[in-house]
Amino acid sequence: MEKEYLLGLDLGGTNAVFGIVDRRGSVVATTAIKTQAYQRVEEFVEASVKAITQLAEQVGGVSEIEAMGIGAPAANYYTGTMENAANIVWAHGTVVPLADMFSQQLGIPVKMTNDANTVAMGEMMYGAARGMKNFIVLTLGTGVGSGIVINGQVVYGSDGFAGELGHVPVFHGGKGRPCGCGNKGCLETYCSATGVAQTAREFLKDTDEPSSLRNLEPEKITSLDVFLAAKDGDALAKRIFDYTGEILGMMCAEFTAYCTPEAFIFFGGLANAGELLMEPIRTSYAKHVLPVLGGKAKFMTSGLDSGTAAILGAAAVSLG
Amino acid sequence: MEKEYLLGLDLGGTNAVFGIVDRRGSVVATTAIKTQAYQRVEEFVEASVKAITQLAEQVGGVSEIEAMGIGAPAANYYTGTMENAANIVWAHGTVVPLADMFSQQLGIPVKMTNDANTVAMGEMMYGAARGMKNFIVLTLGTGVGSGIVINGQVVYGSDGFAGELGHVPVFHGGKGRPCGCGNKGCLETYCSATGVAQTAREFLKDTDEPSSLRNLEPEKITSLDVFLAAKDGDALAKRIFDYTGEILGMMCAEFTAYCTPEAFIFFGGLANAGELLMEPIRTSYAKHVLPVLGGKAKFMTSGLDSGTAAILGAAAVSLG
Repeated sequence: MEKEYLLGLDLGGTNAVFGIVDRRGSVVATTAIKTQAYQRVEEFVEASVKAITQLAEQVGGVSEIEAMGIGAPAANYYTGTMENAANIVWAHGTVVPLADMFSQQLGIPVKMTNDANTVAMGEMMYGAARGMKNFIVLTLGTGVGSGIVINGQVVYGSDGFAGELGHVPVFHGGKGRPCGCGNKGCLETYCSATGVAQTAREFLKDTDEPSSLRNLEPEKITSLDVFLAAKDGDALAKRIFDYTGEILGMMCAEFTAYCTPEAFIFFGGLANAGELLMEPIRTSYAKHVLPVLGGKAKFMTSGLDSGTAAILGAAAVSLG
Repeated sequence: MEKEYLLGLDLGGTNAVFGIVDRRGSVVATTAIKTQAYQRVEEFVEASVKAITQLAEQVGGVSEIEAMGIGAPAANYYTGTMENAANIVWAHGTVVPLADMFSQQLGIPVKMTNDANTVAMGEMMYGAARGMKNFIVLTLGTGVGSGIVINGQVVYGSDGFAGELGHVPVFHGGKGRPCGCGNKGCLETYCSATGVAQTAREFLKDTDEPSSLRNLEPEKITSLDVFLAAKDGDALAKRIFDYTGEILGMMCAEFTAYCTPEAFIFFGGLANAGELLMEPIRTSYAKHVLPVLGGKAKFMTSGLDSGTAAILGAAAVSLG
């Protein structure tokens, strides 16, 4: 018989957050350690197992946990390895078999993928995509991540890394904003939190239109500032969301040609803008989608509580 | 126990070709009727069943056939219906339950999808993609079709119609050549046989460069003319293939961000150009692909005999 609990690990550059999740999708206990307080992966895993063991006492011990799922950067789902995770000191420039290490220490199955794919699993098991078999999650944070679900399965591709819609170009031929990936014009340079802030700086520079955003130092403007201004009725700030939504809707129309998803689910800081963003997305989508495929996709924001989404998603990956 | 034979129907605007395929992937018998010699779908099915019954006598009768697969325009895989197939008199402006009709008449399971998806199934079962679980077929014919395979399954999406990569835009924002779908700048307006002919006309008009293609009436130039000229060393004709391959490689780089396919398989008339097209595709792909995902995909031409590919693919769909 299956055990009552799953374990999720949301592995970020700063914190490694552990959570125990019950079968109904409630996070019943969490703890955290500092990701980079360890020079070697062995030390990180040792500290993690200590934290997990202590945490699991709240539910009767590790023996009550069925499986573990991990959301981590540069994670290969097939091999359970982190491959050249640039921003983590014990994973930089090397291949770390993190899933196997946890599995051996804890004696349970462990699966791992990147955080956008964990969100997709979380939405399918516990969130907005319950009952759906074909949908796309776009995570709009510092960058843009994606989790694509086809026939009820997350798409990991031939190499375990698939689902990088943040790097589909909005402009082809070397045009558009430079992206951290080395290419230009990628979706995430426009539709991430940093992309929105960049759009704000460009709009402020290109016009004389009055805006409350002019009271801020341009380099310090964040997407939250833009959201608050737009909510207060600032016309320029609203146009920034229109522009961002126009691009997102156009790209969602393009993504529809791949897999006609039942829904696009938006997750992360920018998605909190709600209708300010969703309305221009829908309008642009309707304008750009291949007519024969149009009118079918829903546009939704995440059904997961933002505080526990990463843990729920990671735990859900253990079921994948 | 499974029976020895599968039945495939390649339903085109002119001919409906039936073929019996054995378990090793050999087409053992074929016959055909005229698709549009019938005003009503009932008449078409009646004539088809008569032709099938006669054909099946060569293998011991319909009772020796396990299942039937159909490749047809505007085919919905989930429902087995043709939906508003514009160019077929008995299917125009209506929804035709063709799979069910054949299934009832023949007493065997029948599945149906569009022709690009049948090619994908054919490549996976009998062709270049044997042993692969993640790949993309691009059919370069009058238009550009696509069949996407993820985790060993053809992607039909939420609606049964997915895989329309021919309508992903090469140019955004209403730029580029007008497409039959109503949008502008779609891949198929550049990289189909008709797209290549259009490129030839544009290149001839835009330069004074000598070319054997100038001996032809511009409106009558075909992609085959361009291929023959390029094979003979005509520099302008070669540049037409470079341009076409540059666009295909750039778009394959983009498609990689979705599902990191193990291979791209090119099918149809244009793919016969071989290295004239494949070499610029590979070069362009390497230039455009997200660096972390690069270097993994193979670029191949179809492993199916062009004469029987459509029948093999249709038969393979019955296994899907």
